Amino acid sequence: MKPIKVGLLGLGTVGLGTFNVLRRNQEEIKRRAGRGIEIVAVADLNTARALELTGGACAVVGDAQQIVDDPEIDIVIELIGGYGIAKELVLKAIANGKHVVTANKALLATHGNEIFAAAQDKGVMVAFEAAVAGGIPIIKALREGLTANRIDWIAGIINGTTNFILSEMRDKGLDFATALKQAQELGYAEADPTFDIEGVDAAHKATIMSAIAFGIPVQFAKAHVEGIANLQAVDIRYAEQLGYRIKLLGITKRVRVNGGEGIELRVHPTLIPSKRLIANVEGAMNAVLVQGDAIGATLYYGKGAGAEPTASAVIADLVDITRLATADPEHRVPHLAFQPNAMTNIEILPMSEITTSYYLRMHVADRPGVLADLTRILADATISIDAMLQKEPAEDETHTDIIMLTHQTQEKNVVAAIAKMEALASVAGSVTKIRLENLS
Amino acid sequence: MKPIKVGLLGLGTVGLGTFNVLRRNQEEIKRRAGRGIEIVAVADLNTARALELTGGACAVVGDAQQIVDDPEIDIVIELIGGYGIAKELVLKAIANGKHVVTANKALLATHGNEIFAAAQDKGVMVAFEAAVAGGIPIIKALREGLTANRIDWIAGIINGTTNFILSEMRDKGLDFATALKQAQELGYAEADPTFDIEGVDAAHKATIMSAIAFGIPVQFAKAHVEGIANLQAVDIRYAEQLGYRIKLLGITKRVRVNGGEGIELRVHPTLIPSKRLIANVEGAMNAVLVQGDAIGATLYYGKGAGAEPTASAVIADLVDITRLATADPEHRVPHLAFQPNAMTNIEILPMSEITTSYYLRMHVADRPGVLADLTRILADATISIDAMLQKEPAEDETHTDIIMLTHQTQEKNVVAAIAKMEALASVAGSVTKIRLENLS
Repeated sequence: MKPIKVGLLGLGTVGLGTFNVLRRNQEEIKRRAGRGIEIVAVADLNTARALELTGGACAVVGDAQQIVDDPEIDIVIELIGGYGIAKELVLKAIANGKHVVTANKALLATHGNEIFAAAQDKGVMVAFEAAVAGGIPIIKALREGLTANRIDWIAGIINGTTNFILSEMRDKGLDFATALKQAQELGYAEADPTFDIEGVDAAHKATIMSAIAFGIPVQFAKAHVEGIANLQAVDIRYAEQLGYRIKLLGITKRVRVNGGEGIELRVHPTLIPSKRLIANVEGAMNAVLVQGDAIGATLYYGKGAGAEPTASAVIADLVDITRLATADPEHRVPHLAFQPNAMTNIEILPMSEITTSYYLRMHVADRPGVLADLTRILADATISIDAMLQKEPAEDETHTDIIMLTHQTQEKNVVAAIAKMEALASVAGSVTKIRLENLS
Repeated sequence: MKPIKVGLLGLGTVGLGTFNVLRRNQEEIKRRAGRGIEIVAVADLNTARALELTGGACAVVGDAQQIVDDPEIDIVIELIGGYGIAKELVLKAIANGKHVVTANKALLATHGNEIFAAAQDKGVMVAFEAAVAGGIPIIKALREGLTANRIDWIAGIINGTTNFILSEMRDKGLDFATALKQAQELGYAEADPTFDIEGVDAAHKATIMSAIAFGIPVQFAKAHVEGIANLQAVDIRYAEQLGYRIKLLGITKRVRVNGGEGIELRVHPTLIPSKRLIANVEGAMNAVLVQGDAIGATLYYGKGAGAEPTASAVIADLVDITRLATADPEHRVPHLAFQPNAMTNIEILPMSEITTSYYLRMHVADRPGVLADLTRILADATISIDAMLQKEPAEDETHTDIIMLTHQTQEKNVVAAIAKMEALASVAGSVTKIRLENLS
């Protein structure tokens, strides 16, 4: 059987990784796929560099449009990134009847519904294992491995940059700015780290997992996105003393609200018990914890980024497409796990309506009655305290830190209680609030 | 589209779990599969009980043969277990053109080659996600998620009973017999626990993973099988002091030998560094660590047994078959990950030829020169010592324990060195040898 022909758009880190792994393991991949998988053309703006790197193994063009329009090509790999030209090229490839493999989480989280609908109409596949948690086959696990389950929730460390920074802050007691600088020097963070540290990248991935888990459209605009830039070293330390670690988690849950159902979709720093396996995922590693009604908790762990781990996911998609190419389009794995005509639209809840536990830190005057005032505010809001930590004030200090862990309550209750606390004369500055998940 | 029709053989724990999950989540499963999946008949020797449990939802027969011969049935689920009647029924179902889903690791590890060849000839699928690590979609990960990779090795905690026992031994300082008794009382070990504690069950699973990872036939007969019945509490304690935990691992590796390649396939108690994520998998949980050349290390964690976790895997297979039923048989996922005509037969190495590190414990007389004699024996065998622990003898004791961790060496070297050590007058009894893997 003749090889399936692939066109690659973008020869950056992942593009080159894909090119290299596919070449290095071509025999083994063919033995699995039953058919050769061949990159016949690469598009990159820097054609000279692309020519050198591909060494004449395939055509090199400067204009990606040429690949998308090439009738010889069966599958287009989009590794350009962003929403602009990438979107145009993906839609054009689909319109031309080509299957698409992409690692572009930003594109899918924002324009996925349009792209998947177009693919559905044309009977082609858009595969995106590489878009979430790099090489970890989490899309496959969710979409195929756990089909028996009603998924209850997903919580994932799905951004390696921020996990690296948080690990360094904890290990070495660094503040955020220093840890970020170190991560940049070591190549774990980009020169402009905004997308990572502000939680946007994690939210893109959580949005995609949310759709697949619950059979809802991708709705990035409704995700709550909060990064780690304001996280202080002192809170990591206090959390540790209370038996918790702070991780940037992408969380999505199906919950009961007002007699109906709602979806929580949120990215924020989160305290999790230190003894949980996922709390011990360090450095730039990723891990996704999935809770299903039949299977219970399962965890998927591995490298979330990098040339070859991401290439591993891109190539797995190529093999899948090769295998499924002859299946009745109605019988292939649906893009978002559920059949397009069987999607629901359970509402994504505003942040004020979500339910979780909280870590609160108040900097308070060291005088009688302060604790009574604070606990009264919480009691009035029917928020129970699960644990408390009060530090002795340092010498010459008139203020000290009080830390409280609450039981589960709605976000709006906590926000209201914090406003009352901050209005107290004995509370200095603002109250630090970090959400806490037991993940059990 | 009308539902796909399923016949279930065996309404034990997993059979009933499958029946229940399929019924409870039928709507959600249909929304994923694009088609209803319906158990239309159940076979169980205890028909009265089966009638009661299924409540008239499907036909109940006492003779499994009836289901296998029923022309209405598309897929047969085999949950009878063992090699006898189960094998006969699976082969008959295949001969009758039915797809098969089975959780029967013993059957596949010993007769898999024959069964898969028969299925290939008839163009039907035999799916077996439930045969390894219960609900964890590890077969899917290996067979589809990691297709880009040359798999280097797999190491798994793939027997929950023994992991529970080992966790209890470590946590509570129990000896093996007490921990086993406790596991039996709590339902984590069967009345006859032989298959679990002797490592046979883990070896069945490791054999299946080995075939899928490396493209070789299943060869249970060549697996090295060693259980935990002889493991002593003292070794768990010493290992802990040296920064290691002891787990029963199923290990399979592709290695270079004499200019060619060989496969290691072995199950035995293993020291692993405590800081590894997999070392912290406790109780009856399972976890599989897979190292691939592109992706690096990935870990898959979850429940390895139980009614609903295993049902989760059985049903995922049903959905897969439903989706792939319309694919060209040549293009479906091959049973053992590689196309049948692209399997190799890299030799499985005899245990004497494997390479690993070792934990050695000697009970020695507390007198000068003993350590010199022992280290001389190792030096002569060119075995390097990586760490050593010598305990002060207890009061009134003339003997003490010496523990050594070696660098990597061949098993036969260590066996020869141990024979020399045991011949020394200063060494009392036999030398305890436990293999050690760094998993890095």
